[in-house]
Amino acid sequence: MRKSILLSSSFIALLGAPAFAQDDELRSYAADMFKPVPATVPALNDNIVTPEKVDLGKALFFDPRMSASGVFSCNSCHNLATGGDDNMPTSIGHGWQQGPRNSPTVLNSVFNDAQFWDGRAADLAEQAKGPVQAGVEMANTPDNLLATLNSMPQYVDWFNAAFPDTDDPVTFDNFAKAIEAYEATLITPAPFDAWLNGDDGALTAEEKRGLDVFMEAGCASCHGGVNFGGNGYYPFGLVERPGADVLPENDKGRYQVTETASDQYVFRAAPLRNIALTAPYFHSGVVWDLETAVEIMATSQLGTDLAAQETKSIVAFLNTLTGEIPEVVYPVLPPETADTPRPTGEVLPN
Amino acid sequence: MRKSILLSSSFIALLGAPAFAQDDELRSYAADMFKPVPATVPALNDNIVTPEKVDLGKALFFDPRMSASGVFSCNSCHNLATGGDDNMPTSIGHGWQQGPRNSPTVLNSVFNDAQFWDGRAADLAEQAKGPVQAGVEMANTPDNLLATLNSMPQYVDWFNAAFPDTDDPVTFDNFAKAIEAYEATLITPAPFDAWLNGDDGALTAEEKRGLDVFMEAGCASCHGGVNFGGNGYYPFGLVERPGADVLPENDKGRYQVTETASDQYVFRAAPLRNIALTAPYFHSGVVWDLETAVEIMATSQLGTDLAAQETKSIVAFLNTLTGEIPEVVYPVLPPETADTPRPTGEVLPN
Repeated sequence: MRKSILLSSSFIALLGAPAFAQDDELRSYAADMFKPVPATVPALNDNIVTPEKVDLGKALFFDPRMSASGVFSCNSCHNLATGGDDNMPTSIGHGWQQGPRNSPTVLNSVFNDAQFWDGRAADLAEQAKGPVQAGVEMANTPDNLLATLNSMPQYVDWFNAAFPDTDDPVTFDNFAKAIEAYEATLITPAPFDAWLNGDDGALTAEEKRGLDVFMEAGCASCHGGVNFGGNGYYPFGLVERPGADVLPENDKGRYQVTETASDQYVFRAAPLRNIALTAPYFHSGVVWDLETAVEIMATSQLGTDLAAQETKSIVAFLNTLTGEIPEVVYPVLPPETADTPRPTGEVLPN
Repeated sequence: MRKSILLSSSFIALLGAPAFAQDDELRSYAADMFKPVPATVPALNDNIVTPEKVDLGKALFFDPRMSASGVFSCNSCHNLATGGDDNMPTSIGHGWQQGPRNSPTVLNSVFNDAQFWDGRAADLAEQAKGPVQAGVEMANTPDNLLATLNSMPQYVDWFNAAFPDTDDPVTFDNFAKAIEAYEATLITPAPFDAWLNGDDGALTAEEKRGLDVFMEAGCASCHGGVNFGGNGYYPFGLVERPGADVLPENDKGRYQVTETASDQYVFRAAPLRNIALTAPYFHSGVVWDLETAVEIMATSQLGTDLAAQETKSIVAFLNTLTGEIPEVVYPVLPPETADTPRPTGEVLPN
């Protein structure tokens, strides 16, 4: 493990002096572990991003009629007004049922290697198909969803514009691709990006100290890359297993996807961009305080008891990952027609 | 009742010819019954509309944390993406409970003389306090709501900016006033307004025929003014009582407010702006088709059986009341803090 730059004894003395050399050294280490968000929308697998597709995806993302009840849209649990999540331990869905895991933020989710806490969806298009059909979430069916879309001529026009040269563009795959295209635009450049891109003044001394501790303690081993996580799977409790409140015994994590014994209680490392906006924390959503969450991570994953000041510094650094959310003009959605399937709040037996 | 202008025998023959004289005559009658929406936000009772207040009101309108569960915002049932309502017979609220009456549109609601189907709130500020506290809707309490707002410094700043020169601006009254100020901006100028303001080409001949039939048949007696309704109370079934599906026996309407026998089954005349966007219809929300709704009104309120073509013309006219919704930039809301009351989906006994 490298030697801390900023925690060296000379650091405090240097606080009043120009810190350019130190910034350069810290930045050089950080650049090995993290990447700034790009200024352009990343290319998607088999899904060209066009303005028409993004506009369609935005409409679908905000349309509660994509759920059986008409109550829930994608935005209900991934609310762009509140950090791209819903600020609940686990989401409330169809029939007032409680979802099993904390809803992750949609912001910057395009930079995750896979989606969901257990990585069971390879990309955002695959992810988008999940909640729509989940009985405890939106409780819809692809058939009913397509009947809904086809009943509104404006939607059919929008699909035609988004997927030109296609005979029948209104498909469940294209529904998911349009949402993926929209979500790929939800990128939030943060003060940390400005600093990593060379702006020394974008972070305070305390925030830089936090970054230094974050790397020094080993957090970046799992929480690295563009998204400070979202690209690897690790057992929750690598060193010391947290209590059953934080790590409920009945949720075996990635094991439920792979059925491999070593994947028990394995989860995707949570991406940390905008983490200050997305309490409560962990897949169980039981921890509301970011300092507490950092402490739990330090003991359970790294076997480290952080000093109170170190925790505070890390949280100060994590706050620099809170980014600028792109301006969202709320969509005006097509009105229903006589052919639109009617909403139903009925809860069907499993 | 005046003689129809457009249904006179010469009208069809004149369709190809300049219709200026006819337009002027029709407009002169219409101007006695209807008013165009103003280009400016109307003055509110004891509530000066400022940009700061409108911005705060927008944040509150879209914030699901104003509900006990964190699921519902004002926008859930008065969705600006779908005509200002929720496209359900009656809304689904806290604990998946069903509301008693169809959710009316928030668009242009500032022009209603009173709010709710039974007019039990004098204005939008009073209205805003209702659903927040209703157990079947947002199930919150003023105390919990104020604790939520006070826990977020950004909200306190916004209240200070919206209500300057006030010692403690974060009050339930000011919460309601800010929402009222925002809602007062939700005005939707429509093709009918352009026509009433003098643009002959804003309506087609068929739409003008519909307007003529609408006035001729007597619809405008209850559905007049700026909002084509919203400013008077009438028994549903004035001439012929509709079936119990449309007029359920257990909902006695304004009688529940006034306890006056003559107010049994009396409701506020529904405002008709954007009616094409706000199916299903009536307080019971059971009729999805606008033509059917028009037919029911004609028989129950006017004792008239409209010819099929007359119904179609009226619907064509009603479509000209579909207006331009002001562009809404989706708000970015303040993040919770350690002091923010936690959401709860728990359903308390009454």
